[in-house]
Amino acid sequence: MCAADAPGKFITLEGGEGAGKSTQIKRLAARLSRYGIDVVTTREPGGAPGAEEIRKLLVTGEPGRWSAMTEALLHYAARDDHLNKTVRPSLEKGAWVLSDRFADSTRAYQGVGEGLSLEVIGLLDKMVVGATQPDLTLILDLPVEVGLARATHGDGGDEHRYERMGESFHERLRQAFLDIARAHPERCVVIDASGTPDEVTEAIWAAVRDKFRELTDEGAA
Amino acid sequence: MCAADAPGKFITLEGGEGAGKSTQIKRLAARLSRYGIDVVTTREPGGAPGAEEIRKLLVTGEPGRWSAMTEALLHYAARDDHLNKTVRPSLEKGAWVLSDRFADSTRAYQGVGEGLSLEVIGLLDKMVVGATQPDLTLILDLPVEVGLARATHGDGGDEHRYERMGESFHERLRQAFLDIARAHPERCVVIDASGTPDEVTEAIWAAVRDKFRELTDEGAA
Repeated sequence: MCAADAPGKFITLEGGEGAGKSTQIKRLAARLSRYGIDVVTTREPGGAPGAEEIRKLLVTGEPGRWSAMTEALLHYAARDDHLNKTVRPSLEKGAWVLSDRFADSTRAYQGVGEGLSLEVIGLLDKMVVGATQPDLTLILDLPVEVGLARATHGDGGDEHRYERMGESFHERLRQAFLDIARAHPERCVVIDASGTPDEVTEAIWAAVRDKFRELTDEGAA
Repeated sequence: MCAADAPGKFITLEGGEGAGKSTQIKRLAARLSRYGIDVVTTREPGGAPGAEEIRKLLVTGEPGRWSAMTEALLHYAARDDHLNKTVRPSLEKGAWVLSDRFADSTRAYQGVGEGLSLEVIGLLDKMVVGATQPDLTLILDLPVEVGLARATHGDGGDEHRYERMGESFHERLRQAFLDIARAHPERCVVIDASGTPDEVTEAIWAAVRDKFRELTDEGAA
């Protein structure tokens, strides 16, 4: 199964804390729906009932209770379930799948952030994700201090583990995502997320339209 | 960290359902203790607090809710935690670690039983277990019908998932364990588990003494 071979499209949103991924994914879903596209929004870790159970092991309990290796294996176990139960079946029936985080987060957090070998992550990725690579990855980029201030002041969901890790950890994360974008220009677009939510929405929309040329003004309802 | 380099010894018990592993591991622990050996008995999946949480995901819920790949990743995530928190620290301080199941169970159940590529399992094993291979693996072998009858009639612990899988699944499992023994004669000994518990205990003890020549009659208290 391959995103490129399936009738659907697979778009992932990545980036550090406070970049506004959850707001932007909702807006992008609404906009795509106007084209009559069947849109499935999902998230990682999680995105399927079993994968959400694995998520609980990752986001609850003492921070640092798992090694980076254990965490990566749990992320890829959840990812395998997410792909099998949600992503691939949706792509096969022609839906566009928008995921709040995907494999690049494992590369950035467990790999660059926590020092797990990127070669090990690459092997796991080959086993689990295989050909189901995203068609488009939007990397929401903003200065670390801005992101952390937003994440700390917002409601931030149920996961605050990484906010306590200190600025140098988050600087490395930011750099990791920018490096991923440079290494995969065929699928990655860096979005300046330091503007207002509306500005970010427009930047994302421009990137999506540039990638999927079928999204003409005339196509929207 | 390598079992061979650590002062402790790492012994694993493997085999299908109803082979009597939990009874035998207690008896072996008691016997080794008479030599003044610090013995740690443990099990998989589980054997450390986090790994036991992962175990719950594997042994509860609908059978078949995970793919073989997801299951293997969860097993290796639990195994990584078990190795980091229990096995390696115990071996380093000179303890003998006896584990009720270890990586051979993943090869047999998810690999041969459920059809996951043994090459994939081999890669996971290299990442997670690395040099911490068992010094001795006791493969408790018995005819499938005997094992299933015992497992069904005994209290059987909290895990009955595999008992419902049918005889041909269990025949493949039995064969898988025998194949592992043939492929790894340096660490594996097949124990005929069809006799009485006392007979099995003696066969295990003979294999352990043959492997660890320091266990002389004179050494026991």
